[in-house]
Amino acid sequence: MKVGILGSGQLGRMLALAGYPLGLEFEFYDKQAGSPVASLAKVWVGGDTANPELEAFLAQVDVVTYEFEHLDLQLLDYVAARKPMFPGVASNRICQHRVREKRLFSELGVPTAPFRVIETRDDLEQAVAHLGLPLVAKTATQGYDGKGQWVLREAADLERFWPQMDGLLLMVEAFVSFRRELSIVAVRAQDGEIRFYPLTENHHRQGILHYSVAPAEQTQTLQAAAEDYSRRILTALEHVGVLTLELFDTEQGLVANEMAPRVHNSGHWTMDAAECSQFENHLRAVCQLPLGSTAATGPALMLNLVGDPGDVATWLKLDKAHLHLYGKEARPGRKLGHLNLTGDSVEQLKARIADWL
Amino acid sequence: MKVGILGSGQLGRMLALAGYPLGLEFEFYDKQAGSPVASLAKVWVGGDTANPELEAFLAQVDVVTYEFEHLDLQLLDYVAARKPMFPGVASNRICQHRVREKRLFSELGVPTAPFRVIETRDDLEQAVAHLGLPLVAKTATQGYDGKGQWVLREAADLERFWPQMDGLLLMVEAFVSFRRELSIVAVRAQDGEIRFYPLTENHHRQGILHYSVAPAEQTQTLQAAAEDYSRRILTALEHVGVLTLELFDTEQGLVANEMAPRVHNSGHWTMDAAECSQFENHLRAVCQLPLGSTAATGPALMLNLVGDPGDVATWLKLDKAHLHLYGKEARPGRKLGHLNLTGDSVEQLKARIADWL
Repeated sequence: MKVGILGSGQLGRMLALAGYPLGLEFEFYDKQAGSPVASLAKVWVGGDTANPELEAFLAQVDVVTYEFEHLDLQLLDYVAARKPMFPGVASNRICQHRVREKRLFSELGVPTAPFRVIETRDDLEQAVAHLGLPLVAKTATQGYDGKGQWVLREAADLERFWPQMDGLLLMVEAFVSFRRELSIVAVRAQDGEIRFYPLTENHHRQGILHYSVAPAEQTQTLQAAAEDYSRRILTALEHVGVLTLELFDTEQGLVANEMAPRVHNSGHWTMDAAECSQFENHLRAVCQLPLGSTAATGPALMLNLVGDPGDVATWLKLDKAHLHLYGKEARPGRKLGHLNLTGDSVEQLKARIADWL
Repeated sequence: MKVGILGSGQLGRMLALAGYPLGLEFEFYDKQAGSPVASLAKVWVGGDTANPELEAFLAQVDVVTYEFEHLDLQLLDYVAARKPMFPGVASNRICQHRVREKRLFSELGVPTAPFRVIETRDDLEQAVAHLGLPLVAKTATQGYDGKGQWVLREAADLERFWPQMDGLLLMVEAFVSFRRELSIVAVRAQDGEIRFYPLTENHHRQGILHYSVAPAEQTQTLQAAAEDYSRRILTALEHVGVLTLELFDTEQGLVANEMAPRVHNSGHWTMDAAECSQFENHLRAVCQLPLGSTAATGPALMLNLVGDPGDVATWLKLDKAHLHLYGKEARPGRKLGHLNLTGDSVEQLKARIADWL
């Protein structure tokens, strides 16, 4: 079975590495070559509309999936009309657009911060009047890793940021006071079966995930709530494959932040500390194979290597450490790889790499 | 860093899959295309003497290793003169020739079955007179998976088999009565550091490894002896990378059977039940990176899938099972993949797949 993947970044690379042992083969389609998968699979290069490279790519593959959500919907519709595609267009359509995503959360009874859609300066003034300050303003589309976000703390911030925001479809939401950020990675099969990984606790730095700890501690009642919210979303979208829901842990319980219709950075620990990784489980779902166990094999800490991974030997010398580099050139702020540490307790894991946390 | 691999079978495939996460890249050189690595790396195709494909392959890579020992020594010498090659020619020269291997074992004080080199029918008669029957006759070269072996139980067998043997350089050895077959996988770094995986217990069927259990049970005194023998060999050969020593567990202690200067089928369990797999550790040694831990994370059972792997879903439904297919076409007697099972005890593991053992 040959799997076609739209996008060719590190998530695609890790999907291929997880899929080869299942006997799957891979071809990729992206707007540019020279990506993290270039050395381990064929990458077809073309745009969002019908073109010979896209046709050739589609002719090669039995099923299509995608590794990121910021894809042109016209492209997705075109692909879905020609090959089985999982997840479907619906999942992407919602997840690439924060307003649609927020509305879905509301419709499904998944708690979220109060929000308003902003098209004009007047909308913004009214939102401030109703929701108060501080507020978080986000572009409806193309937001990830903290990009397309502004925190409005005082009236003067409106003056300051509006010129950057004007002309964009925006959403503002009330600032949520939270204890910590969590996420739940789930996988849904074509027959509707859903499996959940344990909650992960995420720590960001400059808007980028810095490290994650899994299974998150003190989640006795939270795991069931997170699974409930995730299940509502997966079922409503008839999603097939992995979907990740980011959550704030607040005094009032879990509040949904955003979601991604794909394998996720906060699920990278599953490569070395779950029975079956998020990458393998995504492929199992897409290829109609039985889902694997989402049980954790023990505590894990995932550390992102951003900008400059340093001397590889430093990481390889660490005991019970698993390095995953993405084959990307170093550049400030760029995710170049991650390290998964396993051990006996979260405390012990944190202590072992305290210098980098 | 780009690693060149001579040979392009499943061992090469698993080396590449283990090496990509370390940021390594791979190119292969083999006599034929269409191999298990064809879909995930470039394979240069050429013969054993200087040719443009070989030159192009060598021009691409920083270091060379090999994934099997039945390579032309002329090719190895040619490669080693142009690029750093690990393991060196010495390891291959010995391991591809059973007589040389046996002599090395004897020189190093590694116990082995009494043996004789056979060139003529008269040599064979004398060997029977001195060693008695039964005897195992083996070709000096090209023997693997039970090929090139004959068991001589009675005088009539000499008449029967001699026509097949005549003209081959042979070795006969006394039949060793053993409780079980074990193997030890070890890795030696360029600075001479050696690490050993725990002993593995191996079960064959029709001359092909059927399943392995690791760590082998009741090896309290055997592990140290196996490490001692393995260390002598690794050190004598100045071997860099993984080397596997097959041993018989007998009333008189361990007796060396044969060795392979490479990652080995009996070490496949390390992919899912050791801190660092034999594949990753081989690459770490070859690329002068720190060695990884060889500790087992728990009991494992490795089942080879030979001839016909059946419905993949059967294997994927098993809990704590990790499937590794090699991307090869099914053919009777061919190793197509393996399954690694992890669990709490060897008994439990065996019970879970009792139908296939």
